[in-house]
Amino acid sequence: MGLQIPYICAMSTWKDYQEKNKDRFLSELLELLRIPSVSARSEHKPDMLRCAEAVRQRLLDAGVDKAEIYPTEGHPVVYGEKIVDPSRPTVLVYGHYDVQPADPLDLWHSGPFEPIIKDGKIFARGSADDKGQFYMHVKAVEMMIRTGTLPTNIKFIIEGEEEIGSPNLAKFVSTHKELLKADVILISDTAMISLDTPSIDIGVRGLSYIEVEVTGPNRDLHSGVYGGAVANPITILARMIATCHDENNHITIPGFYDGVVEATPAERKLMAAAPYNEAEYIRDLGVKALWGEKGYTTNERTGIRPTLELNGIWGGYTGEGAKTVLPSKATAKISARLVPNQSSTVITEKLLAYFRQIAPPGVTVKAEEHHGGEPYMTPIDSKAYQAAAKAIEATFGKAPIPVRGGGSIPICSLFEKYLGVKIVFMGFGLDSDNLHSPNEKFELANFYKGIETIPYFHKFFAEG
Amino acid sequence: MGLQIPYICAMSTWKDYQEKNKDRFLSELLELLRIPSVSARSEHKPDMLRCAEAVRQRLLDAGVDKAEIYPTEGHPVVYGEKIVDPSRPTVLVYGHYDVQPADPLDLWHSGPFEPIIKDGKIFARGSADDKGQFYMHVKAVEMMIRTGTLPTNIKFIIEGEEEIGSPNLAKFVSTHKELLKADVILISDTAMISLDTPSIDIGVRGLSYIEVEVTGPNRDLHSGVYGGAVANPITILARMIATCHDENNHITIPGFYDGVVEATPAERKLMAAAPYNEAEYIRDLGVKALWGEKGYTTNERTGIRPTLELNGIWGGYTGEGAKTVLPSKATAKISARLVPNQSSTVITEKLLAYFRQIAPPGVTVKAEEHHGGEPYMTPIDSKAYQAAAKAIEATFGKAPIPVRGGGSIPICSLFEKYLGVKIVFMGFGLDSDNLHSPNEKFELANFYKGIETIPYFHKFFAEG
Repeated sequence: MGLQIPYICAMSTWKDYQEKNKDRFLSELLELLRIPSVSARSEHKPDMLRCAEAVRQRLLDAGVDKAEIYPTEGHPVVYGEKIVDPSRPTVLVYGHYDVQPADPLDLWHSGPFEPIIKDGKIFARGSADDKGQFYMHVKAVEMMIRTGTLPTNIKFIIEGEEEIGSPNLAKFVSTHKELLKADVILISDTAMISLDTPSIDIGVRGLSYIEVEVTGPNRDLHSGVYGGAVANPITILARMIATCHDENNHITIPGFYDGVVEATPAERKLMAAAPYNEAEYIRDLGVKALWGEKGYTTNERTGIRPTLELNGIWGGYTGEGAKTVLPSKATAKISARLVPNQSSTVITEKLLAYFRQIAPPGVTVKAEEHHGGEPYMTPIDSKAYQAAAKAIEATFGKAPIPVRGGGSIPICSLFEKYLGVKIVFMGFGLDSDNLHSPNEKFELANFYKGIETIPYFHKFFAEG
Repeated sequence: MGLQIPYICAMSTWKDYQEKNKDRFLSELLELLRIPSVSARSEHKPDMLRCAEAVRQRLLDAGVDKAEIYPTEGHPVVYGEKIVDPSRPTVLVYGHYDVQPADPLDLWHSGPFEPIIKDGKIFARGSADDKGQFYMHVKAVEMMIRTGTLPTNIKFIIEGEEEIGSPNLAKFVSTHKELLKADVILISDTAMISLDTPSIDIGVRGLSYIEVEVTGPNRDLHSGVYGGAVANPITILARMIATCHDENNHITIPGFYDGVVEATPAERKLMAAAPYNEAEYIRDLGVKALWGEKGYTTNERTGIRPTLELNGIWGGYTGEGAKTVLPSKATAKISARLVPNQSSTVITEKLLAYFRQIAPPGVTVKAEEHHGGEPYMTPIDSKAYQAAAKAIEATFGKAPIPVRGGGSIPICSLFEKYLGVKIVFMGFGLDSDNLHSPNEKFELANFYKGIETIPYFHKFFAEG
């Protein structure tokens, strides 16, 4: 069923097109990065709508047949498609136009929504996660459409709630199965080791994200007058957090590791072969020593082991100077990364139950779920994975290493459930891109390399 | 050396004067409360100057001979005096015109700097701590001057840095010993049990206030990409805090209790006799159970035992929704209340050393002092204490109970050191005044009772 495109011909056509249009590709991306589409903050709702409309327009400009905005109960989904021939395979590209909050703002070297190019890097919130990455697909598709070389049908689903756990995507996908029908889902929302050592993520971890609020007295108290007589919610919350790991940094939540499959010696040997320079890793993070679960390497800790991290904490007086207050409340944001055979639903329940149960009598605890997502694995013997690997080999000159990424893309298992197709991750970011952090960046070289590589995926997938 | 004022005569003169002027006394106080003189926040520097000038003007209006603003390296000190006759005893009134920060603002029923009278209470930041209380002295002195009945020389020192630990007061006092020379220091910055059960604080606890900042990686990281491989500063800080108390809520900082004198059975029996309704205490605070050091009662925990409280904590993402960040830093504000025979300097050093020493290798810890103050005791057999007790008996109709307060007035030991005189605390606040908390209030009845009582102190002290 595949369309055969003469290899050399397509290569030079695409190269020419990209070379002639690369400055425009970049300036279009920068425009998109100027929209502060922060899904977590209600004050950015108008920016979210503006961003969705901009994405829809860019899809139309790229030459798709139609592009529409689908409202949800939260932020809208943008859908677009170019059906070349119903008999050809269909690639569904997933991406997200929403971004993480930019704070702490004072740590940014330049405005998070005023993108600048410095040292070959695009600095802006969303540059790598995920505007810069899904936009590579928009431009690659434009390139194929405009040069008459699009070998597949293409569908885009660009959502606006990835950074808040895609609360409305399941409903959208389950009620639009026909619209979204495809042979593979292609996602660029992950990283590779480097341009010199290309890699493909074959697994992403699941996520359970909760918030725990500890309340002591019904109001803030004077710490001199009442201190020592009532439970201090900060102290209690700290004690609760301190019990979540043992002295070997194993997680102590009862049943947390149930079902987790230990990696075999062979698997661990393979992982250990991946390029990793511990001294460089330590220097980059500016720490004196690494820290983690005893008995595992850094790559294992971030890839195949589940983790529990504190994402935020606050309570009492946090301003300048000193205030002798015994606060009424203290709150923490806590999330776990999950590996295959762990269920986000089950782990979230275990976490919530744990914090509720260990609360001492002097306080009340409110523990609630933010969002979750199941872990996901891509089979490396699938046609889609093979097409991605061949595409990378075609433009990078070497085969990619399959790796398991530490992050989470909660919608993966959802797509599999409702659409019944597999996902391939072709991430062109780097671990050093400062995702979710100040000074997020996306390497210009990676942006262009992505646009260059994506058409080969379509070509090989169509031919496969 | 004392001046004998006919008792009955003075009583009716003062009563008349107060009755005729009470509305003006109140409205003057409300004006003072409208100035947001928050010493801890640099943006309030202009308000601090405005407040100091207002206090100076009020002293002049009350009839003192002179009133001046003395600049310091921080916020200025207001000094005023009325020297009736150098041979008479001199009372130095200490107070502070600065207030605690008002946040969390959303918990206030009305604006913290828009005082309102409701149910016989003045609601405003600083109403009880300490504007309302030092202003009783200004009005009592006006009353005595205007009616020609001031039996003592009077000096006022109203400072602007009490809530931040009086960092510049030692220098001011040590370089103005002659100016401040007095026979007693009178302070209204504490509470009594109730108008039905008057009491006098004979001791205040000392204070050591520190800030601990834990730094892990040199930037905020994606918790999925790096989680599990580097120390999370929130987790580490929580673990450090959790080690500060043992399972009996004894403080575990090495040497913390060195020198602390255990109360004798007789002392404890006396304390147990003070009015205290545990059910009412629990209901008022809205907790299910009290919480504190094993083996001690609530009054002992808040009065004669040293404590260690968390005053604030923050780190990572604290906004709406979820952000999967592994933060670079987490910070806590921590303070200890100290009892006689503990030294603030020594305890502060022990606290700082403790947090520095227990830091694991994956993080760096910066521990610094905010401020401190030594514990202080007033001898109840002194002439000044006896004058205060007699004054209270004169207007309340019953003798005050001597109690040990839980709060701290760090400048006490400083006054003793440089001026060589004792302090008497005549506090007219209540424990329920919400000091340092939202909805701080001062009972109108207590404000007026204070103005009524203070002249008797001067009378009895002059006669003593």
